[in-house]
Amino acid sequence: MCPAPTSTKHRRPAKSTASEAAEGGPAVILVEPQLGENIGMVARAMLNCALVDMRIVAPRDGWPNDAAYKTASGADVVLDNARVYETTADAIADLGHVFATTARARDMSKDVLTPRGAAQEMHEQRGQGVQCGVLFGKEAVGLHNDDIALADSILMVPLNPGFTSLNLAQAVLLMGYEWFQAADDRPHETYEVRLDTRRATKEELVGLFNHLEHELTDCGFLGVEAKKPGMIRNLRNMFQRARMTEQEVRTMRGVIAGLVKKRKN
Amino acid sequence: MCPAPTSTKHRRPAKSTASEAAEGGPAVILVEPQLGENIGMVARAMLNCALVDMRIVAPRDGWPNDAAYKTASGADVVLDNARVYETTADAIADLGHVFATTARARDMSKDVLTPRGAAQEMHEQRGQGVQCGVLFGKEAVGLHNDDIALADSILMVPLNPGFTSLNLAQAVLLMGYEWFQAADDRPHETYEVRLDTRRATKEELVGLFNHLEHELTDCGFLGVEAKKPGMIRNLRNMFQRARMTEQEVRTMRGVIAGLVKKRKN
Repeated sequence: MCPAPTSTKHRRPAKSTASEAAEGGPAVILVEPQLGENIGMVARAMLNCALVDMRIVAPRDGWPNDAAYKTASGADVVLDNARVYETTADAIADLGHVFATTARARDMSKDVLTPRGAAQEMHEQRGQGVQCGVLFGKEAVGLHNDDIALADSILMVPLNPGFTSLNLAQAVLLMGYEWFQAADDRPHETYEVRLDTRRATKEELVGLFNHLEHELTDCGFLGVEAKKPGMIRNLRNMFQRARMTEQEVRTMRGVIAGLVKKRKN
Repeated sequence: MCPAPTSTKHRRPAKSTASEAAEGGPAVILVEPQLGENIGMVARAMLNCALVDMRIVAPRDGWPNDAAYKTASGADVVLDNARVYETTADAIADLGHVFATTARARDMSKDVLTPRGAAQEMHEQRGQGVQCGVLFGKEAVGLHNDDIALADSILMVPLNPGFTSLNLAQAVLLMGYEWFQAADDRPHETYEVRLDTRRATKEELVGLFNHLEHELTDCGFLGVEAKKPGMIRNLRNMFQRARMTEQEVRTMRGVIAGLVKKRKN
């Protein structure tokens, strides 16, 4: 999963459908961020999740910020298009539905959603033409209560209650990840087969079984008649679980022939 | 969501059930990690998700590593208990089921799971007493194909196909987050009410409605009899959507009284 800048051998053709479905994603609004490095890492996490609308409220070190570009790992497009505002109210003026992220309960009467719940809500809002945004507060401090009062609901990540300290980019990543997953209908489990082969047919597999069982009978391994059917079933089940390719069936028949040859010599 | 080192006002009492349910989580195996800073950030992401079993294969800069402690943000317990191995095979020797994370397809015949699919599988394996682990490769390079061949299946995060570059800690965070979510039965949406009040009863709400409608009749706002029922329904629906607390009902009645007083003076 670690970075693969180029990937020429994508088995799954880079599906544009998933990123297209993620278009119209929420704006990410950073309120009074301090370190440019963090803004850059947020840009990277956003682009990972096909989010491109970054808004920055009163950045401590001004804007643009060289340090941000250094940590963005190539997500410059997000930084280049980031917009800067003086107040949170200005930054969310055009939005219809806003979430405020917090690590702790703020003793306000408000809806509280997990990233997964919020992603669901964002897709529903988007379906109704409502543009959403998510507020993220200053490092180590979080959002002002006055910012939270401007939001429709609170977004809180359910994590280890004994250690909830998340950095800014990680918080953005988890929100964006859930947004992207909710837009992505690829299955959670697939069985991928090498490009130069295909799944073996049952005829090929039975050919292997017959070959193996013939040789095992020949060498005496299956000599106890009463045990023979059970042993054959066990072996066949084991090879079935391996979900062999056509190539692997041929390899395995070569292995059997090789072993037999050694014995016969 | 930004760091809140201390949180004394947890509305949701720090539920230990969620972190207890996450016990027995997968081992995180870092194969040939280069930067201590990344190892520290991995430790932090692990503890966020209640994961504590870190294993390190052939760390470039040796172990222990001061730089790791600097970026762990207090997740020292994970680093203190980290175990170091010479080979991947040694590091996974006691495990029953291993996932290999990759950012790109490797042209191997293998199961490929998303973090959500893998988390499901891990919980199933754990239910059968099987200890799981997840391999993460070197920064910018990833795992060797020989390491992947030691694994049961591949874990691949479905993200923006145009920008999949994730750093090590982010990859670990997404896997751990899904593991933790799968163990956490807290709802994805709740409505939380301030500690010093409670949701208003319908009797209190109807009291507010009657108060408001009486004053609106009195001042002539509801003077057009034909429109009165519809206007009353609209106002009542608006206040219903606000899901008011008992305190807010009292505040609102004060607001009405205050406005009436100004008019009457």
